[in-house]
Amino acid sequence: MTREGNRKPEILDTRLVAKSRLFGIEEMHLRFSNGVERTYERLRTPPIAGVMCVPMLDRDTVVLIREYGAGVDEYQITLPKGAYEHGEDWRDAANRELKEEAGYGAGKLTLLKRMTLSPGYMGHHITVALAEDLYEERLPGDEPEPLEVIPWKLSRLDELLQREDMTEARVIAALLMTQRLMDR
Amino acid sequence: MTREGNRKPEILDTRLVAKSRLFGIEEMHLRFSNGVERTYERLRTPPIAGVMCVPMLDRDTVVLIREYGAGVDEYQITLPKGAYEHGEDWRDAANRELKEEAGYGAGKLTLLKRMTLSPGYMGHHITVALAEDLYEERLPGDEPEPLEVIPWKLSRLDELLQREDMTEARVIAALLMTQRLMDR
Repeated sequence: MTREGNRKPEILDTRLVAKSRLFGIEEMHLRFSNGVERTYERLRTPPIAGVMCVPMLDRDTVVLIREYGAGVDEYQITLPKGAYEHGEDWRDAANRELKEEAGYGAGKLTLLKRMTLSPGYMGHHITVALAEDLYEERLPGDEPEPLEVIPWKLSRLDELLQREDMTEARVIAALLMTQRLMDR
Repeated sequence: MTREGNRKPEILDTRLVAKSRLFGIEEMHLRFSNGVERTYERLRTPPIAGVMCVPMLDRDTVVLIREYGAGVDEYQITLPKGAYEHGEDWRDAANRELKEEAGYGAGKLTLLKRMTLSPGYMGHHITVALAEDLYEERLPGDEPEPLEVIPWKLSRLDELLQREDMTEARVIAALLMTQRLMDR
């Protein structure tokens, strides 16, 4: 599947062209293996990675949350997620976010997939993990309001996928991967 | 499922704090319905929407492409996609991107799902469409190098999902939604 000569472009120059508290924007000057040069912009990859859990109460019941998304200015159905804190690995971060956002800890965490958001414009990765053997435990989070916790049956996933407040590609991918796994 | 009193936060102020050729970063000052105030940052939503196709040669064969992603600085397996051009609707844009990136036109386009990337930080949406009744037709695109076109069997989707150059959440979600549809 790898094509001969399809070497990665050479990065001739990268510079930060704009920044804010949270984001940085980089301009990259690239030379492709065929000699064509292009200038691209991308978001600077944050030094901290992210993690997202698919918490399963049983083989058919996933724990969803409902949270305000400032990017879209709407409440959205999503899954517990967040950035690693200092010294955490993905398992620690997954379990902490699950306790903060949904009020559960997980006895068992299984890596499902490491996903990207928009590889053309962002280096951001998120580790998506299946969370099982749940037990009730709540940690205080930094949310401005308590999140609504919604147990939902994977057997009713079609209905969920049709909702206009359920749009996040990472969440759709994670739920469909989980359903395939559970159906085996 | 809607909780009483879970009204959207009031946007007290929005201002542009950084911008580049392609991106803008906004700072939002919000007041949640419980009175808590927070300052968030988000990417400015671009005025043009995006579209992504799942092109099917037959009920088991999807047309993938392999493209350099500057955000991750790696070649990635993805699906034909791009932004609407002036005056286009999603069907026009889907068919044009398909012809430019994969060398096919589609006789039939079906809306699968309107997806978001990261609703907490970005308003970006992409319309994901199933493309069927394909015919060969190539349009010149603006790619710096020709894209590698890879027909892949959905019956071998597990193998694809395990690849480290297949990570994009929107693509995973689109392929899994298509497989569910085709299995019916």
